[in-house]
Amino acid sequence: MPASYAYLGPEGTFTEVALRTLPETATRQLIPYVSVQSALDAVRGGEAEAAFVPIENSVEGGITTTLDELVAGTPLMIYREVLLSITFALLVRPGTELSAIKTVSAHPAAQPQVRNWLKANLPEALWESAASNADAARLVQEGRYDAAFAGEFAAARYGLTALETGIHDAENAQTRFVLVGRPARPAAPTGADKTSVVLWQRDDHPGGLRDLLGEFATRGINLMLLQSRPTGAGIGNYCFCIDAEGHISDRRVADTLTGLKRICRDVRFLGSYPRADVVSAADVPAPLPGTSDEAFMSAADWVARCQDGRF
Amino acid sequence: MPASYAYLGPEGTFTEVALRTLPETATRQLIPYVSVQSALDAVRGGEAEAAFVPIENSVEGGITTTLDELVAGTPLMIYREVLLSITFALLVRPGTELSAIKTVSAHPAAQPQVRNWLKANLPEALWESAASNADAARLVQEGRYDAAFAGEFAAARYGLTALETGIHDAENAQTRFVLVGRPARPAAPTGADKTSVVLWQRDDHPGGLRDLLGEFATRGINLMLLQSRPTGAGIGNYCFCIDAEGHISDRRVADTLTGLKRICRDVRFLGSYPRADVVSAADVPAPLPGTSDEAFMSAADWVARCQDGRF
Repeated sequence: MPASYAYLGPEGTFTEVALRTLPETATRQLIPYVSVQSALDAVRGGEAEAAFVPIENSVEGGITTTLDELVAGTPLMIYREVLLSITFALLVRPGTELSAIKTVSAHPAAQPQVRNWLKANLPEALWESAASNADAARLVQEGRYDAAFAGEFAAARYGLTALETGIHDAENAQTRFVLVGRPARPAAPTGADKTSVVLWQRDDHPGGLRDLLGEFATRGINLMLLQSRPTGAGIGNYCFCIDAEGHISDRRVADTLTGLKRICRDVRFLGSYPRADVVSAADVPAPLPGTSDEAFMSAADWVARCQDGRF
Repeated sequence: MPASYAYLGPEGTFTEVALRTLPETATRQLIPYVSVQSALDAVRGGEAEAAFVPIENSVEGGITTTLDELVAGTPLMIYREVLLSITFALLVRPGTELSAIKTVSAHPAAQPQVRNWLKANLPEALWESAASNADAARLVQEGRYDAAFAGEFAAARYGLTALETGIHDAENAQTRFVLVGRPARPAAPTGADKTSVVLWQRDDHPGGLRDLLGEFATRGINLMLLQSRPTGAGIGNYCFCIDAEGHISDRRVADTLTGLKRICRDVRFLGSYPRADVVSAADVPAPLPGTSDEAFMSAADWVARCQDGRF
C-alpha cells in the first residue's frame, strides 16, 4: 500500500495544519488534492492510503460535501479525527495599510467567521470568493486582491504580512477533520471513542426517527452529531449521519447497531475512532447504570439460564 | 404597511420565478436584494411587508444561510411556501458552439446539479463560481465566461441562447421557497398545513433528542424536515429546525408545542402555513386514531368529569 495521505489542498490551509498534528504523517507523503471528492477518490482508487478532509465546523455545521461523499459510493471508513481552532489573519502585501484595502478574499466558508470583523473594520471592502484561503493569499501576492483572510501560517509562504491576527466572529470556532481510509478492522477501543453511522429509514411514518434514536437512548448512548442529508429522491427525503459516543466493540454500541440494522432500510458503518475532544478515557463519563459491558453480559447470561430453567 | 415584497435577487433567477407563482404578487412591488440576510432585514426594519427566500433543496438539503437567519435575531414567521422544479439551461452568446466552451459559470449551489452533465459533455471546461445564476448569465453576455448554467427564462433577459435545456443530475430536483413576514396571527388552517419550529435542548444527555421527537410521535405527527444547526457554542452544540405536519390550531400540534415548551430550553415558533406539496386537504391522510381534535376534546372532557367525580 502506498505510504501517502491525500488531503484537501492546496498547501498552506487549515487542513494541512490539522493533518500535520497526526504523528504518523512524519513517515507519509502528503499530497494535496483540489477537492474533497478527488481526495476520497484517491483512496477509493488505491492511489492513497488515506484522505484527510474537513467534516464539521462549529459555525457552519456538518460539511455537506464530505458527508455526501461518505454517504454514497464505495464505502469508506473514518480512522482518526482532529479538532483545530480556527482564527483568521488578514494578510496583505508588505506596506499595505488597512485604509487602502478595497477588496478582500477567502474561501466562502470563512465569510460567516469574519463578517462582523469586516463590518466593523472594513465596511466598504468588496468580498471576492476564492477556491481556498491559501488561493486567496496567492491572489493577494499576485496583486489581484488587496487582502486575504487565511491562517497566519500562510503569510510566510506567499510573502505576505499579517495586518491583524486572531480574527473570529464566534468564540471557540473549531473545525473537525477526519482521516478516511478503505474499510478494515477498526483500531482497538481507547475508552474515549466515537462511532459514526448513516441511517436510512425503512419508511416515513410518525415516530420513525424517534424510534431510530430510541435505539441509542435505551442503551444510554449520547449523540454528538445528527445531520440530515437529502437522499436525492426529492424534498423531504433524508438520511441521517450520526456520531455517537462509544466504540463498536462496546456491547452497548454493538447492540445499538444490531437494533438499527433490524429496523432501518439500510445502515452504513463509518467507523469507530478515538475522540479528539477529550484527552483520555478518564475524562469520559462512565456508561449509565445497566449499559456497561458487564451489565450486558450478565443480563445475557441470566436469559440463557432462564432458557435452561436454571434461574 | 408598504405593499412590497423583498426577494433574493438579482432579477431573472429561480427565486423570482417561484415568487411570481404567488397570486398576491400581482399587487405588490417586488424588490430584489443582494442576500438572504438583507432581504430578511428589510422585513425586520419595516421596509418590506415580506421577504421571499429559498429554504430547502432536494439536492443540497436545508439552506443554512436562511435557516440561520430565521433561528437568530428578531423573530420572523413563515406565511407561505412554494416548490419549484429546478432544471438548468446552458446559456451562451448566439453562435457559440459546444466545442468552443472553455469556461462555465453559475452559483455554487448549481454545481452538484450539473456536475455529471459537465463531466459527460464538457469535461475540460473550467468552473467559475458566480454570485447568482443570473449574474453568471450577465458575465457571459459581457464576454467574461463562455457559458452559464441558469434557468432558460434568463436567456432572453441577457441576449443569450440556450444551447441545451433540461439539465439536472438528480431527477425531481426541487427547491422550496418561503415567504417570511413579521409575526402575526397565522392564516386559518386549510387542512393541509405545515408547522415550523426551532428547538434548543435544555441539556445534552442520552435520549435528549429522542424525547423531543417523542412529543411529535406520541401525537401521531409526521416530520418533514429535521435540520441541525450549530448554536455557535462549539463543535457538538446544535439546535434543531423542524417542519412537522399540521397547523398550530390543530389540537395535536398545539399540544405538541406545549410539551416542547415545557421540556426545551427554548422554542421558536416559525409559523403554520399551507403545504405546497399537496393540492388539497383531501390528499392528506387523516390524523392517526386518537390524535384528531375530537379525540383530544373528548379526552379532556373525560378527565374534567373524573376530577368532578362524574365519570
